[in-house]
Amino acid sequence: MFCWLNRLNRGLATPTGRIPQLIWGTFSRSLVLSSQRRIPEFSSFVARTNTCGELRSSHLGQEVTLCGWIQYRRQNIFLVLRDFHGLVQVVIPQDESAASVKKILCEAPVESVVKVSGTVISRPPGQENPKMPTGEIEIKVKTAELLNSCKKLPFEIKDFVKKTEALRLQYRYLDLRSFQMQRNLRLRSQMVMKMREYLCNLHGFVDVETPTLFKRTPGGAKEFVIPSREPGKFYSLPQSPQQFKQLLMVGGIDRYFQVARCYRDEGSRPDRQPEFTQIDIEMSFVDQTGIQRLIEGLLQYSWPDDKGPLGVPFPSMTFAEALASYGTDKPDTRFGMKIVDISDVFRNTKVGFLRDALSKPQGAVKAIRVPGGAEVLPVFLKANRHWNSPVANFIMEEQGLSLTRLIEIQEEDVILLTAGEHRRACSLLGKLRLECADLLEARGVVLRDPAVFSFLWVVDFPLFLPKEENPGELESAHHPFTAPHPSDIHLLYTEPEKARSQHYDLVLNGSEIGGGSIRIHEARLQHHVLEAVLKEDVKLLSHLLQALDYGAPPHGGIALGLDRLICLVTGAPSIRDVIAFPKSFRGHDLMSDAPDFIPPEELKPYHIQVSWPTDSEAEKKSLNHPHYPES
Amino acid sequence: MFCWLNRLNRGLATPTGRIPQLIWGTFSRSLVLSSQRRIPEFSSFVARTNTCGELRSSHLGQEVTLCGWIQYRRQNIFLVLRDFHGLVQVVIPQDESAASVKKILCEAPVESVVKVSGTVISRPPGQENPKMPTGEIEIKVKTAELLNSCKKLPFEIKDFVKKTEALRLQYRYLDLRSFQMQRNLRLRSQMVMKMREYLCNLHGFVDVETPTLFKRTPGGAKEFVIPSREPGKFYSLPQSPQQFKQLLMVGGIDRYFQVARCYRDEGSRPDRQPEFTQIDIEMSFVDQTGIQRLIEGLLQYSWPDDKGPLGVPFPSMTFAEALASYGTDKPDTRFGMKIVDISDVFRNTKVGFLRDALSKPQGAVKAIRVPGGAEVLPVFLKANRHWNSPVANFIMEEQGLSLTRLIEIQEEDVILLTAGEHRRACSLLGKLRLECADLLEARGVVLRDPAVFSFLWVVDFPLFLPKEENPGELESAHHPFTAPHPSDIHLLYTEPEKARSQHYDLVLNGSEIGGGSIRIHEARLQHHVLEAVLKEDVKLLSHLLQALDYGAPPHGGIALGLDRLICLVTGAPSIRDVIAFPKSFRGHDLMSDAPDFIPPEELKPYHIQVSWPTDSEAEKKSLNHPHYPES
Repeated sequence: MFCWLNRLNRGLATPTGRIPQLIWGTFSRSLVLSSQRRIPEFSSFVARTNTCGELRSSHLGQEVTLCGWIQYRRQNIFLVLRDFHGLVQVVIPQDESAASVKKILCEAPVESVVKVSGTVISRPPGQENPKMPTGEIEIKVKTAELLNSCKKLPFEIKDFVKKTEALRLQYRYLDLRSFQMQRNLRLRSQMVMKMREYLCNLHGFVDVETPTLFKRTPGGAKEFVIPSREPGKFYSLPQSPQQFKQLLMVGGIDRYFQVARCYRDEGSRPDRQPEFTQIDIEMSFVDQTGIQRLIEGLLQYSWPDDKGPLGVPFPSMTFAEALASYGTDKPDTRFGMKIVDISDVFRNTKVGFLRDALSKPQGAVKAIRVPGGAEVLPVFLKANRHWNSPVANFIMEEQGLSLTRLIEIQEEDVILLTAGEHRRACSLLGKLRLECADLLEARGVVLRDPAVFSFLWVVDFPLFLPKEENPGELESAHHPFTAPHPSDIHLLYTEPEKARSQHYDLVLNGSEIGGGSIRIHEARLQHHVLEAVLKEDVKLLSHLLQALDYGAPPHGGIALGLDRLICLVTGAPSIRDVIAFPKSFRGHDLMSDAPDFIPPEELKPYHIQVSWPTDSEAEKKSLNHPHYPES
Repeated sequence: MFCWLNRLNRGLATPTGRIPQLIWGTFSRSLVLSSQRRIPEFSSFVARTNTCGELRSSHLGQEVTLCGWIQYRRQNIFLVLRDFHGLVQVVIPQDESAASVKKILCEAPVESVVKVSGTVISRPPGQENPKMPTGEIEIKVKTAELLNSCKKLPFEIKDFVKKTEALRLQYRYLDLRSFQMQRNLRLRSQMVMKMREYLCNLHGFVDVETPTLFKRTPGGAKEFVIPSREPGKFYSLPQSPQQFKQLLMVGGIDRYFQVARCYRDEGSRPDRQPEFTQIDIEMSFVDQTGIQRLIEGLLQYSWPDDKGPLGVPFPSMTFAEALASYGTDKPDTRFGMKIVDISDVFRNTKVGFLRDALSKPQGAVKAIRVPGGAEVLPVFLKANRHWNSPVANFIMEEQGLSLTRLIEIQEEDVILLTAGEHRRACSLLGKLRLECADLLEARGVVLRDPAVFSFLWVVDFPLFLPKEENPGELESAHHPFTAPHPSDIHLLYTEPEKARSQHYDLVLNGSEIGGGSIRIHEARLQHHVLEAVLKEDVKLLSHLLQALDYGAPPHGGIALGLDRLICLVTGAPSIRDVIAFPKSFRGHDLMSDAPDFIPPEELKPYHIQVSWPTDSEAEKKSLNHPHYPES
């Protein structure tokens, strides 16, 4: 529940004694599927004849049976019954002959489950509620049955919106009754269904289930392990069906998709889940453009009607451009404030740190202009006014005019400026850009319209990156199966660090919601990448290398992060709000208390035992390992 | 591949030099979806203009680009190109100007991947192949590109049908190219898609993903465990989303379904998989009949067109009747040979063991008549001839006439007779019934027509059964959330062992393909069952008990075993033939060699270590633990 319950209760407190202002309207509309699809039959196979939310004047005079929860009761005269579809007003009979019905309906606690039968009648004139979808009618009850009584709830429902997320997760089955959670889960189901129709019915994709009990992958440090009944042997839960989908292409499946459960053990990370879902896709005989057009069509087809149409093709940007202009590989293109290279202005500067920065390899001076930033920012450099920093003063005296012209500084703007190595300078300004946006929006400036969905392809990523812990060695920027850019294949044998890849990311409003690539389909090239470039143990992947030798077609694919995508579409504050039973930050199921201790005898068949940490280790651990609050 | 390749190669050996008798026809038809659905576009987004299998006379004169595998080459003149959709004949150009194209197409090994462009032309008169879908046309090639060369395959493809299943699993990506595997996986995908349409689009079910990292359930001895990063704490992989789907009903989701991955660790078991898939369904406000009608509609809607229409409603039988007539709770009703109770014939028998059996509680004499069984069975009792057993002779002298009349014995029939406790006697005859069917069919009698699909509901199961290891205690016949039969609720407090349940099984051709129940929705009753009847630790389920107290609606559901269902629909010999990457009998992935050893340092974050068995333990284990061959 419960943000809408607050509104509901406010609404109910009006003097008419009838219910105005329900917001179930939006919800009901969202259940009416798009015009091409028939509206599902919600009352087939069950005891009710109708849902609470569907009744209208067109039902007047009909005998109906409804099942639902008691949402509210007013003066033992009216009762509001709720089901997933909406609310309806029930008139509690007052005559002696219906005493038993009255008793049931008046005594059952709120949130009890009842079945009522009666007639749809119109509300007395003047008591209609035009803002409530069922507001023209009410139910004159003849029989009532208490199906289950509700005990005192663990919290006042009215106050629930103020409860911690931990409490919501502990009583998830109650939280699921909320308008928001119902809407999110139903929208998710419908959107995935439309994606399936598009892939399976329109474009001939085959939905193939791949195993989750698998073998560890090279560098699979984030894979959960599952002991088997053979001593010392473990399955691993894969982070994605990557190997399987490529093997399906070798197997001639041609077009594969799966709504795939994936697993990643990252310890405690806010807004990550140890298990998550991706729309996993792979095609044979395809290139980067083919995958991009496929995904644009997929999102267009499955996009909720009330979010407006999507324009395609989505814009595209190289990784280099994204870094230079937005300081990140996932630019939020809903607003400007792009990074500008102002190195040229300072070629002859006398300011020491700028001169130093520019003299180094990749050295640059970068800036962003924050429009109206003077209102919100501790000012560093401010146009046409006083300069509140000695360096700023000095810079303005030296390069003021050309700088002002280059960045088009306006009154009240703020310029943020940094000097250093290109990548680091851009990255820093990219972060500041987002923080400035937060600050401006906190002051009421709308930079990122929640109704705008700004998709962007980012392409031409580097194929390899220097390892963080050992920059002399290379690691895959994404994964070792990514094909090099066709123009850069020769670089793999000479300067692999300079090779671009055929990897592509899909970004929505500054969040990465998908990524994929054209894969290496030649065994020799794959072997070179794994062994010569990445120094990986080829044995762990011998089956894949072998498969590439037996007639592997060219192929490529993509995976969309479903949780994140639905979260952005619904505007939910967290991915936990689009998952029925999410884990907490620390990977706990707060409702059932998983993970849990297991008696040693149940571990015996798996030939493992617990290594209990000593006290000092445990203490050290708790120091290194921040205890996120559970919500 | 490869049973069809054999046939293909036989076909190719005909003197015309052209390809007759291809069986891709069936396959292509199965891809044309039912009349209500449009045919998917298989060539969108990719390099080809058409699939190999779709070309017809209507394409004559069209310029096409095809991608596929070299299936066969004949005298460097013809080449047969294959993709998932079928086969097409390609004419290799012989003129000098096309020498490079000829070189590519003649030198590429079989199973290499090529792209060809050319014109669709008609075959010379008399060389059409009416049995091949593309048999009227061929492709006059203009350009060809070798996309990937195929190394020498690990086996002669022609001989592959004789290879062990272990070899098929090791090179699964090659096995997937077979007609059979392509057909099975595509049929599975299509059937599941139609199920989703029925549930989601027609009947308003919500597809909700539930967690697989969960807490162990009471008695969950077959649950895989997953160590977490907290010392001694483990997740468990649930055997089904049972608890979650009930909690979704408490949460007001009303109608839930999921194509759910489930896990069960049973060690080495033939024809079982450690991970499997079920169509998981739950509804609120439903009764047993509602679920049955839903499932009948679901199967009707998703049933493949070429398997003929399904008659509904499916017949229903009580558990007691199934046991008495078929000796099992999953009767194969495609044929008769029902068990007959002939106790009355022997009320005054002088045969000692019969008299003894009848004098005991539940004692009975049972028989089945095997029509024509005299041909195949080591005869025990044979009508109207000599009796080749002293006991039989004695029985026939005593009760011959009434027995012959009761069982309607015919010439050449065999009667199998047993005496003992009702349940055990029926169970024995039930097994013999199936073995007799095998024997009769081995002699050419068709008892179980592979084109017949005989669905059956089995209902009114007992709610509890005596524990095998301790018959004084009770355990759930199915699971502890099953509601008692409405007439038997009082028995839970007096004689729980006599209570029937609201559990129902769906049986197809003698295999259980689904099971479900109406659930207990009252906390008090659930608590009584768990604590007083089953003596379970209620703490592990405290969240569920609590949820039932907060307005749980009456609800029920079912789960269909998808692997088994698809196996029966396709007529595959094993569920491994309808799973893309199945495990072997021993739970191994023979392609990647999972499960595998893991270095101790990768176990450290999980606070576990391997308990290596001592030599003597390992030896004992290998004695107790039969080593199934891998296939």
